[in-house]
Amino acid sequence: MIIIAEKLNGSIPACGKAIAARDEAYIKRIARQQANAGSSFIDVCASVNEGELETLKWMIDLVQSVTDLPISVDSPDVNVIINALDYCNRPGLFNSVSGEGGKFDIAFPVLAKPEYSQWQVMALLCDDTGIPKTAAKRIEIFETVMEKAKSYGIDESRIHIDPLIEMLCTTDEGEGISMLIEVMTYIKTNYPTVYISGAISNISFNLPVRRLVNQAFAALAISAGMNSGVLDPLSKDLRGVILAAEAMMGLDDYCSEYTTAFREGIFTA
Amino acid sequence: MIIIAEKLNGSIPACGKAIAARDEAYIKRIARQQANAGSSFIDVCASVNEGELETLKWMIDLVQSVTDLPISVDSPDVNVIINALDYCNRPGLFNSVSGEGGKFDIAFPVLAKPEYSQWQVMALLCDDTGIPKTAAKRIEIFETVMEKAKSYGIDESRIHIDPLIEMLCTTDEGEGISMLIEVMTYIKTNYPTVYISGAISNISFNLPVRRLVNQAFAALAISAGMNSGVLDPLSKDLRGVILAAEAMMGLDDYCSEYTTAFREGIFTA
Repeated sequence: MIIIAEKLNGSIPACGKAIAARDEAYIKRIARQQANAGSSFIDVCASVNEGELETLKWMIDLVQSVTDLPISVDSPDVNVIINALDYCNRPGLFNSVSGEGGKFDIAFPVLAKPEYSQWQVMALLCDDTGIPKTAAKRIEIFETVMEKAKSYGIDESRIHIDPLIEMLCTTDEGEGISMLIEVMTYIKTNYPTVYISGAISNISFNLPVRRLVNQAFAALAISAGMNSGVLDPLSKDLRGVILAAEAMMGLDDYCSEYTTAFREGIFTA
Repeated sequence: MIIIAEKLNGSIPACGKAIAARDEAYIKRIARQQANAGSSFIDVCASVNEGELETLKWMIDLVQSVTDLPISVDSPDVNVIINALDYCNRPGLFNSVSGEGGKFDIAFPVLAKPEYSQWQVMALLCDDTGIPKTAAKRIEIFETVMEKAKSYGIDESRIHIDPLIEMLCTTDEGEGISMLIEVMTYIKTNYPTVYISGAISNISFNLPVRRLVNQAFAALAISAGMNSGVLDPLSKDLRGVILAAEAMMGLDDYCSEYTTAFREGIFTA
């Protein structure tokens, strides 16, 4: 699984405080910990009311001072992301676009340029009407993403789809995560080179012992094709469950990745 | 999920020692702990070389002195199980029968008698050729179970099927648990009132941090229809993952069973 490390995000209280205090040591420490835990991308989200671009630059510079991992440049504002791309030493993840506010037509022309051809992009399956309640509508937005990407010459293998993981405790009666699984299964079946992603811990909002809900969800999502995830790479049990689920899906012969990760301390007894 | 509590089994070293020493306090303590953890059946397996029936009687009496839960009478010898049924104060689980040695035709006529009509039975999908390597062969044995049960008038809703959970680390390349999922899906689709069961922890033999492998497996097996399991009810994380996975399958509206179990201490933060 592609691990998009989520801990450098101003909306997390401890990180927000560190950003406000321009605590360089904090940013570097969390970046290093996440890199050492085998992340694929280090997500960087300022989540500030003013000076977002400048804050992102400060964070990105600090992260890049301690790790060579690619950055996931994370903002609700596509123009901020576009302006921050050049702060990155190497191609990373454009996080994110969606059907809201014509973002695809702003972001995709940029991602189509030769200098950004190695960048990947996260696309959220929502639009100007908000977060769709049905699988059909999310799939419709997904197809729009794919059409738009194709029209700009952006290869499927550069695209991560966030089908929008919502809290389990308020799903409709008898539904559980069936709608999400339907969307994931559709993507996996029809566009096997597209990454299926999402913020795993969203599933457990407002529930006790969130880690267990996250673990159960990760296993089920992996079985539906999830192969990228925004998560805390330092959640050792979650990492172990993800690797175990991948082995169960036939993606890790003789559990060699699972046992190697254990030896490397990615998860522990 | 029907929880068949597995800890009173002579093949577990601590329990074997307690049985050899006729340590009544141990048997009672484990029985009480498992009952308090919300088990459905207390499995009782002597696993001794000599005097199995007498040992079973001793264990069953002790368990029944501390809990009203039904007993899962567990032996590789169907005749021992048959002889032990009457030690039980109430109908329990006949654990187990299989296609080996004509066991169905020994056990089912007994289970068909009016005095045992409330007993449930665990059927293993193996036969005289051993543990089948293909889903097709396991499904064939399953169909034999169902035919035999029907011929003796044993209702489907009394039957738990153990599709035989084997260790993940030695499955064929690229296979993972796909064969097991195929068998479970077949049963769920064609015989929705049959319980799909099995010994969860078998999946993690010879792997590090077995609890995480067991948790990932439980979530995936539940999504394939597993609704009964031989497991350690005191594994709190596993219990939480099972409840979370059930909620994700739409079996627990608003996660009320999950949150109630948390409040009851079935799992903890």
